[in-house]
Amino acid sequence: MNILTKDLSGHVGETITIKGWLYNKRSSGPISFLELRDGYGFVQGVVVQKDASEAVWQAAESVTQESSVEATGVVTKHPKKENVFELQIKDLKILQLAHDYPIANKEHGPDFLMDNRHLWLRSSKQWAIMRVRDAIITAINEYLHQENFIRVDSPIFTPNACEGTTTLFPVPYFDLGTAYLSQSGQLYSEAAIMSVGRCYDFGPVFRAEKSKTKRHLTEFWMMDAEAAFVEHDENLKIQEGLVRYIVRYCLERCKEELIILERNTERLKKADAPFTRYTYDEAIKKLNAMGSDIKYGDDLGNDDEGLLTKDSEVPVFIEKWPKTIKPFYMKRDVNNPDLVCNDDLIATDGGGELIGGSQREDDAELLFERIKVEGLNVEDYQWYLDLRKYGSVPHSGFGIGLERTVRWICGVEHVRETIAFPRTIGRLKP
Amino acid sequence: MNILTKDLSGHVGETITIKGWLYNKRSSGPISFLELRDGYGFVQGVVVQKDASEAVWQAAESVTQESSVEATGVVTKHPKKENVFELQIKDLKILQLAHDYPIANKEHGPDFLMDNRHLWLRSSKQWAIMRVRDAIITAINEYLHQENFIRVDSPIFTPNACEGTTTLFPVPYFDLGTAYLSQSGQLYSEAAIMSVGRCYDFGPVFRAEKSKTKRHLTEFWMMDAEAAFVEHDENLKIQEGLVRYIVRYCLERCKEELIILERNTERLKKADAPFTRYTYDEAIKKLNAMGSDIKYGDDLGNDDEGLLTKDSEVPVFIEKWPKTIKPFYMKRDVNNPDLVCNDDLIATDGGGELIGGSQREDDAELLFERIKVEGLNVEDYQWYLDLRKYGSVPHSGFGIGLERTVRWICGVEHVRETIAFPRTIGRLKP
Repeated sequence: MNILTKDLSGHVGETITIKGWLYNKRSSGPISFLELRDGYGFVQGVVVQKDASEAVWQAAESVTQESSVEATGVVTKHPKKENVFELQIKDLKILQLAHDYPIANKEHGPDFLMDNRHLWLRSSKQWAIMRVRDAIITAINEYLHQENFIRVDSPIFTPNACEGTTTLFPVPYFDLGTAYLSQSGQLYSEAAIMSVGRCYDFGPVFRAEKSKTKRHLTEFWMMDAEAAFVEHDENLKIQEGLVRYIVRYCLERCKEELIILERNTERLKKADAPFTRYTYDEAIKKLNAMGSDIKYGDDLGNDDEGLLTKDSEVPVFIEKWPKTIKPFYMKRDVNNPDLVCNDDLIATDGGGELIGGSQREDDAELLFERIKVEGLNVEDYQWYLDLRKYGSVPHSGFGIGLERTVRWICGVEHVRETIAFPRTIGRLKP
Repeated sequence: MNILTKDLSGHVGETITIKGWLYNKRSSGPISFLELRDGYGFVQGVVVQKDASEAVWQAAESVTQESSVEATGVVTKHPKKENVFELQIKDLKILQLAHDYPIANKEHGPDFLMDNRHLWLRSSKQWAIMRVRDAIITAINEYLHQENFIRVDSPIFTPNACEGTTTLFPVPYFDLGTAYLSQSGQLYSEAAIMSVGRCYDFGPVFRAEKSKTKRHLTEFWMMDAEAAFVEHDENLKIQEGLVRYIVRYCLERCKEELIILERNTERLKKADAPFTRYTYDEAIKKLNAMGSDIKYGDDLGNDDEGLLTKDSEVPVFIEKWPKTIKPFYMKRDVNNPDLVCNDDLIATDGGGELIGGSQREDDAELLFERIKVEGLNVEDYQWYLDLRKYGSVPHSGFGIGLERTVRWICGVEHVRETIAFPRTIGRLKP
């Protein structure tokens, strides 16, 4: 009977078969310990020379790292560790013997690993990250559906830019000139909520940014949520609910993965509590008091975000920013028209910015004015202005970066490890 | 208390508020019937002049199509229809009065509707399609996770093509030359399963095809699933399981939407039964017997697919095609090396091809040979060949087109209605 490693606990004492790969091997004289992986987890296989046939012992001796195998044996409980199981191997079939697997169990440079990303994915840490990433995606889908959002995907080919044009990838588009790869589906989601009430998109977005940092990819995944009849405060509540749902979901479903990643789960548990809220004004004052030379009207840099959250156990909202440093579509604060009803959400543990959100301007005239002041081409936004002419309603939304969320939950340093095949300014392969 | 239309049944006799838009209106002397929509469904609001204040009656008289409103009143059961509710409106607040909404309740040409896609989405049929689409996406995510697949997204920027180069969109990529927008993530998924066992990607893919048919978009969504240790027969079982799960899920969750779409749900119910399997050879013979002049070695066209399935209550697999008309990566049939272990799945009711799948060639030498014979650049596929050098295993996969599935389940004719903002050779806006 073929069994997955994740289901071993239900088969103690039974003879089963694991199909997978040899992850690691060590020998102790007449006993061979084969660490097997099957994609769903790991199990130690034990071959004892005196109990094994000559053929099986030979196979155990000759099998190499990353060879594919079928191992049949009896499932036993680990003599010391709770909830860990072993396979007492009776039969070992090598499906394909790997020669000179390039990623040995030693340190390699990042370029070498990235060149071999198709193989590096098999390393336990990368395996764990991919599984946490999947859990985060599932958590996002689940939470949003519970909150009555449905998925309405935005187009990738767009005729114009949402936030400036300097970082766009152009694509020749038949006889219609140039299409640009989307940087955000927000404006389209604003159209869709007037049909479905609440919606989200969740797809790749593209930035032709020449940044070489640990937080930048040219292609990354973004979830944009948008909701009719939701104003600033409720927008923040939805965001907080989502992030706390993700944290809980991963703590519950990714225990083994977070151990492999050596993530401090106590810190993650503490993040599932009411988030801190600062106004932009408060944040600047706090930063100045902490020694930063940031000035009112500046955007927060990476260092400022780190400083502001370094003693925080929970993510921190920074809300109500000066309108001068924020995009045209954000709604002005009724109490202070120099501010907009927006927020950034900064993660704990140096995770940086996860979310940017805002209530949207729903007044056709004010929006038209902002579009003109920003020097944007009104013609391009005619359809967007239509949304304020035909049944305008208060509405809000936000975007969460998938890779940054994975980076935070996994506690990995470089965002390139949070996506299967990362694309950066210097990398397009494999 | 604000209530969503979908939750009205739990509030009969209570005074509640619906926030939404006026979808339609008719008057019968001293009674005004306001059809309201809130994104989650529809409800008829009733305003009786003699019971209403002058202000409320005036609001009911003056409110226009697609104005945004807040309607407060008592929920009642429809006098005749089961499970239908009405709102006896006591207060009606117009949030924003729409003037001259361009899409009247009359026939418009497709170009006009597509130019106004941001508004057309509000029409009940388009609303229903978006909701069915969401249900199909959720069904796919659910089924695959139940079957132990996890999501591992493939890159969009790729250095080379999976199936030929004639229909690729090129993008200038920094100093690295040209990137191409992905047409399929399959090859990447094949790498990922050697880490995680079973995985899928689900994202936009791009074809620069100059086709102007009812079945072609330049940007569409595809789900590619891939599984280690799965061979041809099990591959077909997973596909059939997925499609039947989608059908059941939509029948259960999208009752109201399928009524709006006038979809024959009896036909859909019948599709949830064991699928028919023809070999390619059998299919050609059947088609010839039915009058088609298709020849052995030809690909099946749209008409052939229609002919072959016209009397079928269940989708039809066509398996084991000649290798000459299929891509290099498909595994040869051990019983006949001129055939490959692949399948196409054709939907009922003229839905056309939903799925293409195959077992993949897992022998490094045979694959290398096929790459050379096809005239592909071996260097580009070195990483792909690595997967056969380091722990090769039998594996299979398939891709399902999201828009074609939506088209089939919804019973709509043109694929442009199955995505929120369709992109075709002649359309990049809005």
